[in-house]
Amino acid sequence: MNAKSTALAGLACLLTGCTTMRNSTTTEKPMIVHSVFFKLKHDKGSQAEAGFLAQAAELSGIPGVENFQTLKETSPKNNFDFGLSMEFADQAAYDGYNTHPDHVRFVQEVWLKEVVEFQEIDYVPIAD
Amino acid sequence: MNAKSTALAGLACLLTGCTTMRNSTTTEKPMIVHSVFFKLKHDKGSQAEAGFLAQAAELSGIPGVENFQTLKETSPKNNFDFGLSMEFADQAAYDGYNTHPDHVRFVQEVWLKEVVEFQEIDYVPIAD
Repeated sequence: MNAKSTALAGLACLLTGCTTMRNSTTTEKPMIVHSVFFKLKHDKGSQAEAGFLAQAAELSGIPGVENFQTLKETSPKNNFDFGLSMEFADQAAYDGYNTHPDHVRFVQEVWLKEVVEFQEIDYVPIAD
Repeated sequence: MNAKSTALAGLACLLTGCTTMRNSTTTEKPMIVHSVFFKLKHDKGSQAEAGFLAQAAELSGIPGVENFQTLKETSPKNNFDFGLSMEFADQAAYDGYNTHPDHVRFVQEVWLKEVVEFQEIDYVPIAD
């Protein structure tokens, strides 16, 4: 769902009084959400930490990536401190991201050197 | 963010051409997203599986729960098959959910008996 269709769904939601916007759009093909939660080797609040997050945020510019978010993990029930979340319209868009040179370079030159623990989780909503 | 504010944000997004709706609403206090990904002891596609998911979906009725979603986990990089995601306006709302009798009963009588593996992840977006 791109920004415009999201906005249109929101407008329809406002006019019709639906209880949640997401429910109003379940007739669309659901987006694939790709997320990864991780712990860095850097000290909390360090410049190195900020540098990692800034480089990660540049992944948002890869074609096919939608609704990119950098997340702060807040649960005490895991060891992760941060997360990245993004959405893809379909598996082809996801595959294009995975194999994009900017993503491959980030994984090889940044991720593998600075992340000490991580968990990838991908999902699609199950329609009501 | 409730349905109306979501819709208004969407409308503002449509009018101003922002790239993503979420980015247009970072001046609001972010919602806490609570998610849990899990594997059931039931056979895939079984009635028991459907029964579990139906009971889990009833958690959406607990006060404070917003944007409840049942998720199908799709990544081969973990053992989970499903997820639940919900949002809370603040920690008090989250705490109210955690201690609500319907949630406590679900955990004791359903979750602990039918879930064989799980990971809780909570997060808030980091503003740009």
